[in-house]
Amino acid sequence: MLQHAPTLTRLVGELKKLPGIGERTALRLAFHLLKSPQNLGSLAEALTQVQERVCACSVCFALTEQNPCPICSGGRDSSVICVVETSQDMLALERSNAYHGSYHVLQGAISPLHGVNPDDLRIRELLMRIEQGKVEEVVIATNFTVEGETTALYLARQLKPLGIRVTRLAHGIPLGSDIEFVDPATVQWAMKGRSEL
Amino acid sequence: MLQHAPTLTRLVGELKKLPGIGERTALRLAFHLLKSPQNLGSLAEALTQVQERVCACSVCFALTEQNPCPICSGGRDSSVICVVETSQDMLALERSNAYHGSYHVLQGAISPLHGVNPDDLRIRELLMRIEQGKVEEVVIATNFTVEGETTALYLARQLKPLGIRVTRLAHGIPLGSDIEFVDPATVQWAMKGRSEL
Repeated sequence: MLQHAPTLTRLVGELKKLPGIGERTALRLAFHLLKSPQNLGSLAEALTQVQERVCACSVCFALTEQNPCPICSGGRDSSVICVVETSQDMLALERSNAYHGSYHVLQGAISPLHGVNPDDLRIRELLMRIEQGKVEEVVIATNFTVEGETTALYLARQLKPLGIRVTRLAHGIPLGSDIEFVDPATVQWAMKGRSEL
Repeated sequence: MLQHAPTLTRLVGELKKLPGIGERTALRLAFHLLKSPQNLGSLAEALTQVQERVCACSVCFALTEQNPCPICSGGRDSSVICVVETSQDMLALERSNAYHGSYHVLQGAISPLHGVNPDDLRIRELLMRIEQGKVEEVVIATNFTVEGETTALYLARQLKPLGIRVTRLAHGIPLGSDIEFVDPATVQWAMKGRSEL
């Protein structure tokens, strides 16, 4: 049947491009959408709207519908910049409600293996923001992966000569976890970073 | 950030309606699509095309882009009708390459618990097809669930008085499976249906 349904084949092909969705799931999703034409229409519309309206903020490069984004234009503390890899990371930090400064989205991390060099990231723009403004601290919140750590190290080397305080999110045992099952490297960091009670 | 991005919130909401996709996966998919605007556009287009072009075949009620569908209009044996619950089931039978007759998609199965009565299915249309044509056999290929079995029984009672051969797909041990782990009811069916070697 699918051979005779080119639009269905195409939809399945498009769905398969999404992360974690294979041939079978794509077929299931496509048939589910066909069963509810209303959902199908509103998904198509939502996609088109997102494509039309969402862009990168010209200041912090987070995905946004207003430019500059509500955080950059929202009167938040601009003397602290938190550097993250992606808009999703920024979202996670916002959810924690623990930070009230501004952000800078690098749009990736340094990864020579994948051909991502410092020039491919928004590092130049970060340095320009620092030159222009009265930035006192940069909190580096790149991921704790090889790529993220490399990026953090690179940024620290670039920023420290400018006389700015450069900090990094703390390593340690996650809340609610059993020390027995935490990996040794994390326990090591938690021990090093122990604090007075 | 999401509070300030109504189109993104809407896209996440639409994605969440899909089976097996929750808030987190929906967010991940949305951000993935935002990273590749080309994919986003072509997914939206594929959805719109499917919505415009796919409909139910007026003969067998399978989802199709041509009406009647390629199977109904393709010169296949119309003296045998295979009755399935959904277009996906039909697709699975077509993949097996074991059947060369025509199909009839009921668009569901009898399920009083979910308020699905025989009148809600395409049973009337099946009876009309049988009255009009020279149908010799109806192969009932509804699922082997309570709903599917109920539907099969109901159909058999309706069709047998018309003097038609009514058959059902065989129960048995699936290929490649270990008898040790097959459920007792299936083993029972397999024993009853054993054949000469």
